[in-house]
Amino acid sequence: MPRSKSGLNEFDLIRRFFVPLTKNAPGAFALSDDAAILSVEPGRNLVVTTDMMVSGVHFLPDTAPEDIAAKLLRVNLSDLASMGAVPESYTLSIALPKSDSSANEAWLKRFATGLSDEQNIWDISLVGGDTVSTPGALTLNVTAFGSVPVGGELRRSGAVSGDSIFVSGTLGDAALGLNALKGDISGLAREALDYLVSRHRRPSPRGALGRRLAGLATSTIDVSDGLAADLEHICEASGVSATVDVSKIPLSPIARSLLDQDGNHLNAILAGGDDYELLFTASSRNEEALAKLSVELDLPITKIGHIQGPKKDEKVRILDINGQTVNLASGGYRHF
Amino acid sequence: MPRSKSGLNEFDLIRRFFVPLTKNAPGAFALSDDAAILSVEPGRNLVVTTDMMVSGVHFLPDTAPEDIAAKLLRVNLSDLASMGAVPESYTLSIALPKSDSSANEAWLKRFATGLSDEQNIWDISLVGGDTVSTPGALTLNVTAFGSVPVGGELRRSGAVSGDSIFVSGTLGDAALGLNALKGDISGLAREALDYLVSRHRRPSPRGALGRRLAGLATSTIDVSDGLAADLEHICEASGVSATVDVSKIPLSPIARSLLDQDGNHLNAILAGGDDYELLFTASSRNEEALAKLSVELDLPITKIGHIQGPKKDEKVRILDINGQTVNLASGGYRHF
Repeated sequence: MPRSKSGLNEFDLIRRFFVPLTKNAPGAFALSDDAAILSVEPGRNLVVTTDMMVSGVHFLPDTAPEDIAAKLLRVNLSDLASMGAVPESYTLSIALPKSDSSANEAWLKRFATGLSDEQNIWDISLVGGDTVSTPGALTLNVTAFGSVPVGGELRRSGAVSGDSIFVSGTLGDAALGLNALKGDISGLAREALDYLVSRHRRPSPRGALGRRLAGLATSTIDVSDGLAADLEHICEASGVSATVDVSKIPLSPIARSLLDQDGNHLNAILAGGDDYELLFTASSRNEEALAKLSVELDLPITKIGHIQGPKKDEKVRILDINGQTVNLASGGYRHF
Repeated sequence: MPRSKSGLNEFDLIRRFFVPLTKNAPGAFALSDDAAILSVEPGRNLVVTTDMMVSGVHFLPDTAPEDIAAKLLRVNLSDLASMGAVPESYTLSIALPKSDSSANEAWLKRFATGLSDEQNIWDISLVGGDTVSTPGALTLNVTAFGSVPVGGELRRSGAVSGDSIFVSGTLGDAALGLNALKGDISGLAREALDYLVSRHRRPSPRGALGRRLAGLATSTIDVSDGLAADLEHICEASGVSATVDVSKIPLSPIARSLLDQDGNHLNAILAGGDDYELLFTASSRNEEALAKLSVELDLPITKIGHIQGPKKDEKVRILDINGQTVNLASGGYRHF
């Protein structure tokens, strides 16, 4: 690896754009071997996750290459965060459209710059990859690696009746940002639009929080499919049900203002997805510890509901301020 | 993971087709968590490789799903073999064309059956994945994991002047098989065609050999880009040059017969690629040990040339029976 057949001089572009991204990973052998070596410290396990992104499905085709690089890595880092893992490295596969090789080269240059910036932010390194050509859409796959103490990983399956439900940060901004990009929200001030779009394009994986939740959280997931759908995943894995109080859901001032203007935005907030906040359950006796952690990490942690015993239907109930069940327009996020 | 948005009921198809493939991997958590856990035994390192395959680029669009599954895994297992690693597990990402969801379902069913058969042959397990939709071509990515004793991995970079060059099995069959599928070779008997096509569709990763080459081989690579190109990779990584004697290259009786009929087939044999045999260098004092290993593994190991000191140009010289340099029509394999 990496093998490469995309019409460009692949070995050359790998040398120029991707080998420099491996400089902090001796086990990548500067991409000059068939595979990479990952060492795992004694007492730790490796955590692995993979995500594929397709142009026109997971990002708009005119998205800046740097933003695609950021989202691709951050989506994977969010999965590692929700397992409580320390991120370490990743492999990258790219299927480049056959079209114009100089356009591909310009795109790759910006994409690799974006990856480099992200590597510096998150302290991770490329360790391997593959570059191929495609007659279809630009397609990217990252497999990301982290580590956790043996037995210390966070799971979806430990929620028990009586637990409280918490979420980090604010929900809905990313989905509202996407809706704004698609022209479905008008009249936004420039700063408001920029904020929402940035939350859509560059989610913040909550790794620092995830790594501190061992011993505190009983179940954890990252909000990628939307609050309602991801809470349902926790309920399924744990064999419980959940009730969420809509009025408790943490919103940014901009999301709050949009919701005040038009109640239909609630759907984006509850089911929009792509928030990449951590949603977790914990015993209420850990509330004080979580409040301290929130201050320490400078990250809001908000209690939004509670866990009950298993129910046959309606695993997740979302109640409005009148105690009435909110019906979602769709059960979860469907990408555009 | 796995997140899934391909028009089908993704959670349902993951449950039906992919969760059963994780039954021997407790760290996969039956695909119900955000990431998988890989344990690595003390004293061993993890080896990781990744390969992406695109319909119409890496396989003909009418290839049977079972054959695609086999090739996808075996190509990755061959990379692990060339590092001397014991294969353990893999993640899989699939971008499914949006088209017809019942066609996708039928395809996935056969593809998963193929994966299951391969898992049984090679003793590996699915540990995670992602399923997405694409407006373009079916695209598959596997990231495969193996393990080696710490410091025991085979590399491309250890060849020294005076070493002999060896290759396992026979070369050229896969490229001739592809040429036959494309209609470029006529008059083949049914059995001969079947043999060549099978070598193209279902390469045999040489894991048993790779795991025995530690301490014997000075450099190792798998023949994916073609003998000439892959030997050049070894020369570049090792800072040496190489001479190959064409008459020594091991050929199957069918490839031999085709070459006798038409000398132009030599190009497929030297530069066709996709052989997935192991190409390696070793001191001549290890020849006897390699001969014994060949008998033990029931796998031909053939000496085809020797390594010399570095040369500025022409890192790899291929000599015909008259001692004349063979000029290749192309430097390496270009996929159709």
